[in-house]
Amino acid sequence: MKGTILYAPGDVRFETCADPEIVDATDAVVRIAATCVCGSDLWPYRGLQPLDGPSPMGHEYCGYVEEVGSAVKAVKPGQFVVGSFATSDNTCPHCKHGYQSSCAQREFITRAQAPVLRVPLADGTLVPTPDAPSDDLIPSLLTTSDVLGTGWFAADAANVEPGSTVVVVGDGAVGLLGVLSAKQMGAERIIAMSRHEPRQALARDFGATDIVPERGDEGVERIMDMTDGIGADSVLECVGTQQSMMQAIRSTRKGGYASFVGVPHGVELHGEELFFAHVHLHGGPAPVRRYLPDLIELVLDRQIDPGKVFDLTLPLEQVAEGYRAMDERTAIKALLRP
Amino acid sequence: MKGTILYAPGDVRFETCADPEIVDATDAVVRIAATCVCGSDLWPYRGLQPLDGPSPMGHEYCGYVEEVGSAVKAVKPGQFVVGSFATSDNTCPHCKHGYQSSCAQREFITRAQAPVLRVPLADGTLVPTPDAPSDDLIPSLLTTSDVLGTGWFAADAANVEPGSTVVVVGDGAVGLLGVLSAKQMGAERIIAMSRHEPRQALARDFGATDIVPERGDEGVERIMDMTDGIGADSVLECVGTQQSMMQAIRSTRKGGYASFVGVPHGVELHGEELFFAHVHLHGGPAPVRRYLPDLIELVLDRQIDPGKVFDLTLPLEQVAEGYRAMDERTAIKALLRP
Repeated sequence: MKGTILYAPGDVRFETCADPEIVDATDAVVRIAATCVCGSDLWPYRGLQPLDGPSPMGHEYCGYVEEVGSAVKAVKPGQFVVGSFATSDNTCPHCKHGYQSSCAQREFITRAQAPVLRVPLADGTLVPTPDAPSDDLIPSLLTTSDVLGTGWFAADAANVEPGSTVVVVGDGAVGLLGVLSAKQMGAERIIAMSRHEPRQALARDFGATDIVPERGDEGVERIMDMTDGIGADSVLECVGTQQSMMQAIRSTRKGGYASFVGVPHGVELHGEELFFAHVHLHGGPAPVRRYLPDLIELVLDRQIDPGKVFDLTLPLEQVAEGYRAMDERTAIKALLRP
Repeated sequence: MKGTILYAPGDVRFETCADPEIVDATDAVVRIAATCVCGSDLWPYRGLQPLDGPSPMGHEYCGYVEEVGSAVKAVKPGQFVVGSFATSDNTCPHCKHGYQSSCAQREFITRAQAPVLRVPLADGTLVPTPDAPSDDLIPSLLTTSDVLGTGWFAADAANVEPGSTVVVVGDGAVGLLGVLSAKQMGAERIIAMSRHEPRQALARDFGATDIVPERGDEGVERIMDMTDGIGADSVLECVGTQQSMMQAIRSTRKGGYASFVGVPHGVELHGEELFFAHVHLHGGPAPVRRYLPDLIELVLDRQIDPGKVFDLTLPLEQVAEGYRAMDERTAIKALLRP
């Protein structure tokens, strides 16, 4: 088969790879129905994260089980499944506490931007749908694999509750789905920080009540003005830079909650500022597996339509175009169909 | 009267100061029954925190109200009161959320190592006892003003619950009262990090089930060994250095809670490590005022005896000796009686 390899910054190729097969008894092989390009793929694509030689890409996926190893009990060939970008046994102490993305046996999925994918720890990583889903639901189901699960974790880790005032820093797909998640959790006011008109529109569609285009200290000042000098109850940091992190912490009220869900790049937090900020801080790789059953159900019940973040759909072999469009911000998120 | 002034590192003097008086209508003047030296006083005493000229010292206090301003309603002359080291109006949004130590009108108390103290925002800062307390309860009541309230916040911010496995980093008075607090909150296992025999003994007396003398990476390794490689549910950082902070974060299980309650000195947190640590992090100046009514009640009911942290009692005029003993760690905490 062919799969996606990042050779160097800006150099994505779709080229011949080995066919995935069962290696361990706990593996499944999944025929991909849809995959996509993640904001985190752009860090190495932009040369902002070191690349250790040519790297197979892709970690968001859903599709049909083709084959399972002899120890797999929870999924079977023919079933439609969604899995997390991080594998988990779902039985270790970290998993039992709901932190499957820090499972003792965790591996990060790569190679999902391909027609077929090997998934380790299939029983603890994949969640099947009751039936084969309608084709129009595939994009939304795909989001539960990472981008929606991550936005959901951002809202959950920031303690969004009915009535909360929420700020979302970052208007990428994760931030936009952080808006959707906050809305689902009953937030009363959702302020999306965005300066791009199509993203502002989608943020409003997902439930944002206010849009603030300012960034950094100016953004903090706007939030303080809008909250009578108090700050927001919950702030979701969905970017991963020093500026966005400080913007999030400084926009949170004393005793409020700031979450961060993108791998921080070059971020250093000054202990004394964090102390007097008085915020709760929580983040990390989203434990998507914890949320998958509920999020899949919300999608199948058509209560949410997170697939709207895909404003570009390409055949899988045009994956390089998907990277280019997201890098240039002409697309929010690129869906890839094998 | 005379009061305590820190002139330079190591140079504490008890010398003539102006008598405190009512300045604002919301003030009270309190005759001090007992005060003490705080671990945080040692930072400038040791020259590890810049000193902006001669500085009046002391912020832990309890005593009898002598006089109140015309706007004070909640306390009256003759009452015994305990107050927080941070003043609060107890009505602003931060106070209403329970973060009185970040009150919009907050001032940090100084000048408490003296026979008489002016307390601003008396209604929102001071809590009276129902009657004049028995003299033997004065040391324990004094602890509620800061050191116990801070240990209690450390345990609360680290989400200590019935059955929790808790680690306390730091065997100063705050750490020791963090042990007591964790015990009160129902922790099942409390591991105190301490290498000093008298402090180890007091930690055990307050409820520690295990003592670990190792520090830094070796300390983390011991905690990992003791928790089957998982880490602790709750870790209380009660020191404020880079080493203790990293020790706390690295000893916490994925999804667990690390709190920090001493002003961090020279601490920088690396964003990526914090991300993959997957911990909840919360700290800041302890909102003592939130806890004061309950802690005072626990003391008056003789359910806890936090005053045991005072292993040195001195007449107030010997305050310099109290600093010296704590600096040299020959005393855990020095009580001062006018």
